[in-house]
Amino acid sequence: MTERAEAIAAKIERFVRETVIPYERDPRLTAHGPTEELVQEMRAKARAAGLMTPHIVADGSHLSQRETAIVLKKSGLSPLGPVAVNTMAPDEGNMYLIGKIGTAEHKRRFLDKLVAGEARSAFFMTEPAEEGGAGSDPSMMKTTCRLDGDHWVINGRKAFITGAQGAKVGIIMAKSEDGACMFLVDLPDPAIRIDRVLDTIDSSMPGGHSVLTIDNLRVPADQMMGAAGEGFKYAQVRLSPARLSHCMRWLGSAMRAQEIASDYACRREAFGKKLVDHEGVGFMLAENMIDLKQAELMIDWCADVLDGGSLGTVESSMAKVAVSEALYRVADRCIQVMGGTGVSGDTVVEQIFREIRAFRIYDGPTEVHKWSLAKKIKRDHAKANPQ
Amino acid sequence: MTERAEAIAAKIERFVRETVIPYERDPRLTAHGPTEELVQEMRAKARAAGLMTPHIVADGSHLSQRETAIVLKKSGLSPLGPVAVNTMAPDEGNMYLIGKIGTAEHKRRFLDKLVAGEARSAFFMTEPAEEGGAGSDPSMMKTTCRLDGDHWVINGRKAFITGAQGAKVGIIMAKSEDGACMFLVDLPDPAIRIDRVLDTIDSSMPGGHSVLTIDNLRVPADQMMGAAGEGFKYAQVRLSPARLSHCMRWLGSAMRAQEIASDYACRREAFGKKLVDHEGVGFMLAENMIDLKQAELMIDWCADVLDGGSLGTVESSMAKVAVSEALYRVADRCIQVMGGTGVSGDTVVEQIFREIRAFRIYDGPTEVHKWSLAKKIKRDHAKANPQ
Amino acid sequence: MTERAEAIAAKIERFVRETVIPYERDPRLTAHGPTEELVQEMRAKARAAGLMTPHIVADGSHLSQRETAIVLKKSGLSPLGPVAVNTMAPDEGNMYLIGKIGTAEHKRRFLDKLVAGEARSAFFMTEPAEEGGAGSDPSMMKTTCRLDGDHWVINGRKAFITGAQGAKVGIIMAKSEDGACMFLVDLPDPAIRIDRVLDTIDSSMPGGHSVLTIDNLRVPADQMMGAAGEGFKYAQVRLSPARLSHCMRWLGSAMRAQEIASDYACRREAFGKKLVDHEGVGFMLAENMIDLKQAELMIDWCADVLDGGSLGTVESSMAKVAVSEALYRVADRCIQVMGGTGVSGDTVVEQIFREIRAFRIYDGPTEVHKWSLAKKIKRDHAKANPQ
Amino acid sequence: MTERAEAIAAKIERFVRETVIPYERDPRLTAHGPTEELVQEMRAKARAAGLMTPHIVADGSHLSQRETAIVLKKSGLSPLGPVAVNTMAPDEGNMYLIGKIGTAEHKRRFLDKLVAGEARSAFFMTEPAEEGGAGSDPSMMKTTCRLDGDHWVINGRKAFITGAQGAKVGIIMAKSEDGACMFLVDLPDPAIRIDRVLDTIDSSMPGGHSVLTIDNLRVPADQMMGAAGEGFKYAQVRLSPARLSHCMRWLGSAMRAQEIASDYACRREAFGKKLVDHEGVGFMLAENMIDLKQAELMIDWCADVLDGGSLGTVESSMAKVAVSEALYRVADRCIQVMGGTGVSGDTVVEQIFREIRAFRIYDGPTEVHKWSLAKKIKRDHAKANPQ
Repeated sequence: MTERAEAIAAKIERFVRETVIPYERDPRLTAHGPTEELVQEMRAKARAAGLMTPHIVADGSHLSQRETAIVLKKSGLSPLGPVAVNTMAPDEGNMYLIGKIGTAEHKRRFLDKLVAGEARSAFFMTEPAEEGGAGSDPSMMKTTCRLDGDHWVINGRKAFITGAQGAKVGIIMAKSEDGACMFLVDLPDPAIRIDRVLDTIDSSMPGGHSVLTIDNLRVPADQMMGAAGEGFKYAQVRLSPARLSHCMRWLGSAMRAQEIASDYACRREAFGKKLVDHEGVGFMLAENMIDLKQAELMIDWCADVLDGGSLGTVESSMAKVAVSEALYRVADRCIQVMGGTGVSGDTVVEQIFREIRAFRIYDGPTEVHKWSLAKKIKRDHAKANPQ
Repeated sequence: MTERAEAIAAKIERFVRETVIPYERDPRLTAHGPTEELVQEMRAKARAAGLMTPHIVADGSHLSQRETAIVLKKSGLSPLGPVAVNTMAPDEGNMYLIGKIGTAEHKRRFLDKLVAGEARSAFFMTEPAEEGGAGSDPSMMKTTCRLDGDHWVINGRKAFITGAQGAKVGIIMAKSEDGACMFLVDLPDPAIRIDRVLDTIDSSMPGGHSVLTIDNLRVPADQMMGAAGEGFKYAQVRLSPARLSHCMRWLGSAMRAQEIASDYACRREAFGKKLVDHEGVGFMLAENMIDLKQAELMIDWCADVLDGGSLGTVESSMAKVAVSEALYRVADRCIQVMGGTGVSGDTVVEQIFREIRAFRIYDGPTEVHKWSLAKKIKRDHAKANPQ
Repeated sequence: MTERAEAIAAKIERFVRETVIPYERDPRLTAHGPTEELVQEMRAKARAAGLMTPHIVADGSHLSQRETAIVLKKSGLSPLGPVAVNTMAPDEGNMYLIGKIGTAEHKRRFLDKLVAGEARSAFFMTEPAEEGGAGSDPSMMKTTCRLDGDHWVINGRKAFITGAQGAKVGIIMAKSEDGACMFLVDLPDPAIRIDRVLDTIDSSMPGGHSVLTIDNLRVPADQMMGAAGEGFKYAQVRLSPARLSHCMRWLGSAMRAQEIASDYACRREAFGKKLVDHEGVGFMLAENMIDLKQAELMIDWCADVLDGGSLGTVESSMAKVAVSEALYRVADRCIQVMGGTGVSGDTVVEQIFREIRAFRIYDGPTEVHKWSLAKKIKRDHAKANPQ
Repeated sequence: MTERAEAIAAKIERFVRETVIPYERDPRLTAHGPTEELVQEMRAKARAAGLMTPHIVADGSHLSQRETAIVLKKSGLSPLGPVAVNTMAPDEGNMYLIGKIGTAEHKRRFLDKLVAGEARSAFFMTEPAEEGGAGSDPSMMKTTCRLDGDHWVINGRKAFITGAQGAKVGIIMAKSEDGACMFLVDLPDPAIRIDRVLDTIDSSMPGGHSVLTIDNLRVPADQMMGAAGEGFKYAQVRLSPARLSHCMRWLGSAMRAQEIASDYACRREAFGKKLVDHEGVGFMLAENMIDLKQAELMIDWCADVLDGGSLGTVESSMAKVAVSEALYRVADRCIQVMGGTGVSGDTVVEQIFREIRAFRIYDGPTEVHKWSLAKKIKRDHAKANPQ
């Protein structure tokens, strides 16, 4: 691990523990995440502490994925941490993507304010399942774009668009005759109508998750990212790092849950001894210890693969499944260790559990990743056994 | 199965499907359960349909446990069903207990209005863990009662008291010099101060779960149930049927989740075929089918044991563990099958999942039951191998 | 439960415990099951005790499935028990099938000696996977039969034919132009060449599991069971009861493993107390208690379905999956409780574990049953939602 | 990874695949491991290939643990590999221990022939559970040693002593008045009587696992390793690396099982498509992919800890639990994927499954490690929260 990353991570940890965690009981936390006011209040403090967007360094370059891992993990010690220091989804992935694919003008107009933490963004990809749109299977995308003069006209419906409510920057995926295209747009826009914000089991993302209609949205041609028909290729660039950054943040949260549950078990008594001295409890905490370590190792391994220049599609699928399922077991055991207190909002463990339940679905359900890993096994076999 | 029970169950099913389920999107549903207004509105309809408190028949007698199982299961097809038809916890168990232990006067004053669905009740047993009070281990009870003239004076703190907010009847456990005592009280009472209603992962119980202080509550001596020092014995009478009734109701809810998830999987497509035709999805639904059947069989078996006159302490522990864990797996798989829709409030599956997560803790966490089953194994071994 | 079944079961239990269990260390136990000499020695004792083929009563009728369950469970208390009292696979299923489909002459020639325990039988269905033959998917069957005068000529390869080595009676499945056919044959026959007896993880079945070649076997036409082309229909008749009888027998074995492991845990000490007082151990035994009860309830439920006249295909799939997986968890935990002793042959637990591992494959792997249950869910949905 | 380790690992892999794997069907493989003749035949080939004891380099120094990991993993591609190239247990750990604790004379007399692969060794630690001796809890050790002139006299019973039958070198643990002592002895010795070789579920270790009696064994004082009373301290030195080396070898075996099962699934068809195209099968292989990667990462992490100079007691407990449980899941799934072939001896998968089942017990059952990890959590909490 580099010294710079360790220094940043240490500062982030202190900031989250001292400054962010007290906000976990703030009344401005809603079922659809912290209010914009609360977001800006926390960000002002992060900015003052020199900790805004800590994974992008002063010269605009990005920490390596391996370095990012330790920084994002620490930001995740509170579900509010990533919001406060701007390491959260979907912004983290969107900034990464614009940095990789965007033109200088794109960066100036859209990226800079994101990196400064002055604006939030959304990624318009998934569509309503009940209308046969793209969910886990992007090939089902129904939103269209067509060139009309020097503008593209976009029409369609999108669902589960995280952070759309309140975002200033949008990245929209749509299908042209040439294939998938990707656009940068200013938000809000009257042609994008938020039909409703979904109630979901998780509640940490500002703006929640929206269902919305894009109705003849006109986008200047120079706001297309890259070339027409290459949209899925660019989405691939974003895919693995964004997926892995979820793992990093939620690892931090699960570690926090384990801290709280261990403290609980070491203090409370029942049936004549401390809870931790009951093997039924102690074993659960021991299993958590192992699961947390394994999650960390999977993240670091996948980060190394990405840092080596690979797209890491297979590796990030492996990491996503392993880490989300492991952290979920951890959160579930923490609740169980804490009994009634565990299912109450008296500690943040209850929220962490709900967030990680959703994480097993978000960014591709476990089953979709296993499906693609099985394809990989078949492909490798065919390669090794040519006919 | 008796004809009468099948007839009641069929009517309850129709009522829940036609009348109760539409309320699942009512704005009067709060994080602490339906409002009193909503409770009364639904109960008026149940009363009009002749379905109030369906497990207690006209002559005041109780259906057998085996009969109760089928009725309560159907009431549980919606998390609101048991509230609407008055088969919910803790009232169902409280009515059972007063019916068994209460005097004629107790029944007249406290039970009748409960059976009529005109009042709700609460059972004041568990205490704040952080203050070293009784949680899963009732021997740690710190709330006291002492005789002062012809009144008992009760002092203490209670936590996780379901439904206390808004209840008209309370059953309070406290410790005298002679041991545990049990009292019937009218609510509200200024000597019982609700400090706060907990935010919890579940949200179906009217009144939520309260933390409260009992401060020199004076209870006339004739409101003691049974004899001083016998309180735990009476609690045992309530224990197994109440525990089993949770299993019955949540079985109904899990069956509903399976209906919804199966319907989803049979309609939606991804990767070129219906979800149900993906083994990764179809297998989860198949596992649910098995888990639901096993839960039903465990409930029926334990009900038969209770109907045979046994306290069923061991059997209801076995049923509680098996059923709560099985239904939780079912609810979790239903969410997973439904992807993003599963973690959203668009269907009731998300709530059912949260409720059953809490059920793994309520009425004794899984681990406490395993602990007592292990003691049973040791006891049986000692009996079979006298030294 | 009927009195007659309880009386038989009690006698079988005593016989197995007193007479069969001592044979568990007999040197005539081989990797391919007990030798014929040992089989006959145990059967002579069973016959003397009036306990041969206890599920078929004196008048030739069969106990109900529900009665059979309790009898076969007790016979399974030792892996040798079913061999000794003739309740074992595949004979139990073969006898059932001949009883249902065979002519009077078939019964006289083939069934009587099986019921008398004087002969063993084999069911020739599955084929070598490496040759593309029928395994879990019977539609892949490659063995053929064609009529030549008043004989059928059978050719093909079969694999995993339990008990073929040493059997006197065979039931052979083969495909004619009209579809699957079923034949009764005397064994051994020079046209049936046992190529090898497989080494397998299990070791209780006399004769083991063979791979064999059928080379121009000529069978008189009157030894066909039922009609040509109806073979799969008859196989269905055998299917559910045979599948369920596996569950019954292995339930008995798993109960025995639990007895042994509980005794071990109640006697041995480590880290300052009896093993059973370590929650890590006691919880495993408690989980076994629950799994064993659930297995029993699933068996009884499915038995009732069969006794009601249904083919029980869905129900026996559900029972097979639930019971085999539950008993496997039980056996695995018993080993773990017993540590080094658990993985040694010093107790029969080690063998029971190996047998039940194989049981998760035999009679249809868990996955094949889940696959067919998923189809059932889809079918039911289509029926309830006609288009 | 160092170049030297990669070069050695590549050679070991080729040797195991080309030369050792053909021996997997050798008739000299017994239930108690390969015969001495077979061991020597394979070792002669390893020696000729320059591959004997590959983790100890020419100058007598040991590869780092991280380097050892890759070499031992490759040796484990066959259960016979570690025997052939002398990386097996308990010799690997015994050589390590003598190298660390032994005097020059000890090394000359006992170590050299072990490193040369000319002799095998045994570690006499565990004792019969049924006699109350030391199993997982070494504090229960009953074997004694007392000084008599310039000899120590040892008496006691030992159980599960791997490789004792046929070993030339023994390391014996016994208790003196000063505490645990450790001795090097020549074997066989008439004062050490092998009472029986246990039948166990595993079958790869030459000599199997013995129960034996030490009856007035006289050992010259200079054959004590280190100082009297320090025996447990030396055992600690051996503990973590030996434990980890099990993980390394069995990882190789589980990878082999996955190769075989993947090949099977990519070639065989059922229900109209290749097995691998059934999600029920493909998902199992995908889960294996993840489990194997996680096992590898845990091993490498723990190896780094050891290479850093730590005893690694906590880390090797974590690795042992995680790796043994993961590899067991892998082996179990491989069997399930392969159906009947999986439970047969037709491939080595069936043996690998049995070996890894035992591995969950050997070197401390999973539960004992969880117990000690829970203690660690409690210790850390007390340290962080001084009273």
